Amino acid sequence: MMSEYIAGVDIGGTKIIATIADVTGIKSRVYQQTRLHGDNFTIPKQVYALIQLAAENAQIQYDEIKSVGVSTCSPFLRNGIYKEIVAPNLCGGLTNSGRLPNDWQSIALEEFLCNLYSHVIVENDCVASVVAEKLFGAGKFIDNLVYVTWSTGIGAGIYADGKLIRGKNGNAPHFGHIFIAEDGPQCGCGNYGDLEALSSGSAIARDYNVSSAKIVFDDYRHGNEKAIAIIKRAARNFARGLASLNAMVDTEYISLGGSVMNDSDILLPMIHEEFYKSFQVLSHNVIIEKSALFQYIADIAALALVMPASWIEQWRTYSPWLESPKMIKLD
Amino acid sequence: MMSEYIAGVDIGGTKIIATIADVTGIKSRVYQQTRLHGDNFTIPKQVYALIQLAAENAQIQYDEIKSVGVSTCSPFLRNGIYKEIVAPNLCGGLTNSGRLPNDWQSIALEEFLCNLYSHVIVENDCVASVVAEKLFGAGKFIDNLVYVTWSTGIGAGIYADGKLIRGKNGNAPHFGHIFIAEDGPQCGCGNYGDLEALSSGSAIARDYNVSSAKIVFDDYRHGNEKAIAIIKRAARNFARGLASLNAMVDTEYISLGGSVMNDSDILLPMIHEEFYKSFQVLSHNVIIEKSALFQYIADIAALALVMPASWIEQWRTYSPWLESPKMIKLD
Repeated sequence: MMSEYIAGVDIGGTKIIATIADVTGIKSRVYQQTRLHGDNFTIPKQVYALIQLAAENAQIQYDEIKSVGVSTCSPFLRNGIYKEIVAPNLCGGLTNSGRLPNDWQSIALEEFLCNLYSHVIVENDCVASVVAEKLFGAGKFIDNLVYVTWSTGIGAGIYADGKLIRGKNGNAPHFGHIFIAEDGPQCGCGNYGDLEALSSGSAIARDYNVSSAKIVFDDYRHGNEKAIAIIKRAARNFARGLASLNAMVDTEYISLGGSVMNDSDILLPMIHEEFYKSFQVLSHNVIIEKSALFQYIADIAALALVMPASWIEQWRTYSPWLESPKMIKLD
Repeated sequence: MMSEYIAGVDIGGTKIIATIADVTGIKSRVYQQTRLHGDNFTIPKQVYALIQLAAENAQIQYDEIKSVGVSTCSPFLRNGIYKEIVAPNLCGGLTNSGRLPNDWQSIALEEFLCNLYSHVIVENDCVASVVAEKLFGAGKFIDNLVYVTWSTGIGAGIYADGKLIRGKNGNAPHFGHIFIAEDGPQCGCGNYGDLEALSSGSAIARDYNVSSAKIVFDDYRHGNEKAIAIIKRAARNFARGLASLNAMVDTEYISLGGSVMNDSDILLPMIHEEFYKSFQVLSHNVIIEKSALFQYIADIAALALVMPASWIEQWRTYSPWLESPKMIKLD
């Protein structure tokens, strides 16, 4: 019997990861900085090349890969039967801020990949992540589950009553773009005072006038008062955002991932304190934790989208991602 | 063949409506001020009495009613197989504000009615209303639909991908309790700065120091600057709340009801202006209108919960609610 392989691709504003897996686990993981120069087929071509490189790295034939799951920053806009990516973190043409070195209005990734592979699923990265949580993480035994990423941007995926929420363009839920203040700084999406503008990793860095939220957390640990105030405000608003989300979907469990959650020792106590202060009847019995899949969520999320049903029991039993090969950086 | 009758009951903080219907339409509608004094069976007993009075008014035998749909302000808390009502507008024991003349922690309405009728469905009023919209209103042909009530309180019901969202306690979505400002006045639920505290009918009245939002709208029409400022702020925050809701569920249509929407001529243009300013990709193709069922939504919502499937086509075809008898006020 021929071995069966699947590929997972995670597309973020900073890097793209490609992963190859079979029923026994992850065979290869490579990543590259996201290419934002050139025409709007730059990213589709980069994804194609990365899958080839990941296959090479796994020492398998490239044409053994028939299924590709893509977990990407979004939103999407529907164009005929395909959805196109219209993400403010990738498409410079959506705002005129000059923040990105391109003028892309959209990226037709799904159509591009469907011409190359027989089975392609493209989903919002947080939707894909909550699928992973439902299969392999916190959600295995519950019907109401939320995954939230707190990273450069902020997003969420939701199971309500056992159903994945997708919405008319597969855009639900763009948690980072809920309003959290009557006024406030502008988000990449154009909104003023939304959660992403107030609490995201880039908002934390912006408020401290540095390039990365990591620096603010380092200074927090050294007792810098400004860093402490910025992180407290960001965490408070983030927790109020979680309370708003829970008011909307009445969930059981919120799993938190994303690079900002590397500092979960600082953030989780702040989040818990603020969250449980909100409307008690709704908040009191919701569990909020850092994702147990944290380090591997990007890989598992993309793979979960196209994983054959027959693999799932084995992956649940053996958690093979814990034995994954190291991620290889490509130029 | 015996005629078949169903009863619908709508429970709000101000009044309780009981409605009797058969396959041809609504036969009787009565209402009474909500009784908030006494022990926590006051409301269950009042509901029981009102159904009897509505049946009497319709000149039918009381025991011909086997099915009761209840559309009520909430949230709920699960107690065994039944949900109990723990609504801040009914249960004085939830906050210590002294706003209500009772110390109820919860109301065991569902269990009470299940001992009296063979078929009982109790739902949040906005969940029931969106069921009515899906069957008889804006939602007949779409899968992603939201109903929002803008009244003394603010709430919503949501269909996402054709499924009604309910959540672990049937509490979803408590739209009024999403945070919309970093700080702000306190809501009946205990939150500071949530949508209900900023934009509800009672918030509008509170900010103008009068007993009813109606007075503020009257003064708005007479050009009073303070009234204009209060209503503009309330409408702006309400629209930002709708944008947050849409960011979460990526909907197609938002139907608006509730007493504040009696002044929709003032409010809808404000809502549209603010809503479509938010993140374009998500907001641009969402339709926001006053509910076409507006005047009858409370009756139809409660009835829709228990309406036999065989009646629905006839009700859709003939819109019999348009010929409903006048509502009778009882002491």
